[in-house]
Amino acid sequence: MTQKIIGIDLGGTSVKIALISLNGAIEDQWSVPTNIEDAGSHIVPDIIDSVKSYLSAHDMTESDIQGIGMGSPGQIDPEKGTVKGAYNLGWAETQEVKSKFQETFDVPFVIDNDANVAALGEQWKGAGNNEPDVIFVTLGTGVGGGIVLGGELIHGAAGSAGEIGHMVVDTNGFACTCGNRGCLETVASATGIVRLAKVEAKQNDYDSPLNAMIADDTISAKKVFDAAKADDALGREVVDQFANYLGLACGQLGNALNPSKIVIGGGVSAAGEFLLEKVNEKFQQYAFSSVKDSTSLALATLGNDAGILGAASLVRE
Amino acid sequence: MTQKIIGIDLGGTSVKIALISLNGAIEDQWSVPTNIEDAGSHIVPDIIDSVKSYLSAHDMTESDIQGIGMGSPGQIDPEKGTVKGAYNLGWAETQEVKSKFQETFDVPFVIDNDANVAALGEQWKGAGNNEPDVIFVTLGTGVGGGIVLGGELIHGAAGSAGEIGHMVVDTNGFACTCGNRGCLETVASATGIVRLAKVEAKQNDYDSPLNAMIADDTISAKKVFDAAKADDALGREVVDQFANYLGLACGQLGNALNPSKIVIGGGVSAAGEFLLEKVNEKFQQYAFSSVKDSTSLALATLGNDAGILGAASLVRE
Repeated sequence: MTQKIIGIDLGGTSVKIALISLNGAIEDQWSVPTNIEDAGSHIVPDIIDSVKSYLSAHDMTESDIQGIGMGSPGQIDPEKGTVKGAYNLGWAETQEVKSKFQETFDVPFVIDNDANVAALGEQWKGAGNNEPDVIFVTLGTGVGGGIVLGGELIHGAAGSAGEIGHMVVDTNGFACTCGNRGCLETVASATGIVRLAKVEAKQNDYDSPLNAMIADDTISAKKVFDAAKADDALGREVVDQFANYLGLACGQLGNALNPSKIVIGGGVSAAGEFLLEKVNEKFQQYAFSSVKDSTSLALATLGNDAGILGAASLVRE
Repeated sequence: MTQKIIGIDLGGTSVKIALISLNGAIEDQWSVPTNIEDAGSHIVPDIIDSVKSYLSAHDMTESDIQGIGMGSPGQIDPEKGTVKGAYNLGWAETQEVKSKFQETFDVPFVIDNDANVAALGEQWKGAGNNEPDVIFVTLGTGVGGGIVLGGELIHGAAGSAGEIGHMVVDTNGFACTCGNRGCLETVASATGIVRLAKVEAKQNDYDSPLNAMIADDTISAKKVFDAAKADDALGREVVDQFANYLGLACGQLGNALNPSKIVIGGGVSAAGEFLLEKVNEKFQQYAFSSVKDSTSLALATLGNDAGILGAASLVRE
């Protein structure tokens, strides 16, 4: 049979595992729970067992597998194949993930961090259309990112490339958990958008349904976008501020790197074309003329599958 | 003999040409005037003649040359080896540079734009210490840049990567020649620093020797730095503003790409360690914690030789 790739997306509650063709079709997928007990010591053995069982149940051997790719939270050393500081998995100390896989499977194993892996997934099979230069920005509880240039993930000198959420977009802005001030994450994450709404509602008088949600703390980024879509003035103002900050960061990235696509994903991006249009308007304002014409913004298309596809992509040559 | 590389740095008034060893030692160098008459049609033939004469005078043949690398102003298509829009050379229309060289010399020929080539020079033999990930920012009449990642120049989707001078550092800033507002170039180029001084002197009262220079238009970036070094309050304020903007741009680049070095060159960087220290203070403020520790700023060390060395580096495998 044609060789396949195993793609693994390790998350805090479950591990997604998939059998993926060399050209990126998901042929089968399943998941196992993430058992974080005993300092997460069961996680890797559980995944290995699951892959082993799958292969044997499907009459497959190592020779049918081109390799195994994996995305994980935490700080990854892609060379050594280790993970540390993945606190949501119980992995405070360095975990020898690659060596454990290679004790069992005599196939290439490649691991990278989850934001990078999602970027690679979107670049390969998602909004990136397999173009070589693609940046992925993910707007969730925080803001993360990954940069693919020439088809390869950029890691930087200490593996800290892609800290797009900590690009400073307002030098007088809000304090960030990282210790700096005005990071993109403080204004473009789900919590950042809520923060913008609270500040704006306090500073100016709006007759807005969002005021009551702020008062009883049921406000969310989704509700801000919904209000803006319904032409609520407070909602529109907050979305404009968000779009300005994200458009500025995309402009910086565009002018520095001129990727063909900057892909926007994560929970906040569920606001869809409405969000994209607003951000693009600001991006066009901040991008250099030749970048406006050659770098475009796009919504992520893979959703939760970006992780397994990107993990598989790590294995491709 | 061991093979050598020919490095060519094409400028508006002269062309620097050098014989460079495979490990980057400049073994010989000379120059020819840039003859921009007749729409610059003599430029490439003049360079070819000069290289031919040099080789024959030194009993060298094509087999002694690993290749020819060249940096040029204008928009370069590195694949096709063409240049267009180099108006200071008289080259408004597309010039077939590579094919002309290859009609004469049966060796590899590689061309790229001058800012990229200088970046590659500093990365290889200058402040970059041949580390793989190095960003070069050049502060002259304008602000240019080049980005080297994994030892390779980043070009982007339309060859517009490295437009560091047009990263927006002040959304309410000065109008830029590019049509946008608040680009780094408007505040960190030689003319940008003079602009900052004029605005600051107008807005606030200073008892400063710079006031007279502003009045009789003898002010320059160098004089602003000299005043700041002599503890003049206006000079210090302007240098602080400059450093804040450049430090912010370096922070953005650091957080996105985590290069080992961001190298600062160009005429303005003659202000030396004083400038570096000020910019670094702001960079430290805007960089993500792990980036602070692994990305450092440095002054360019090659001066005018960055071009010929970077051109030679284009040829290396």
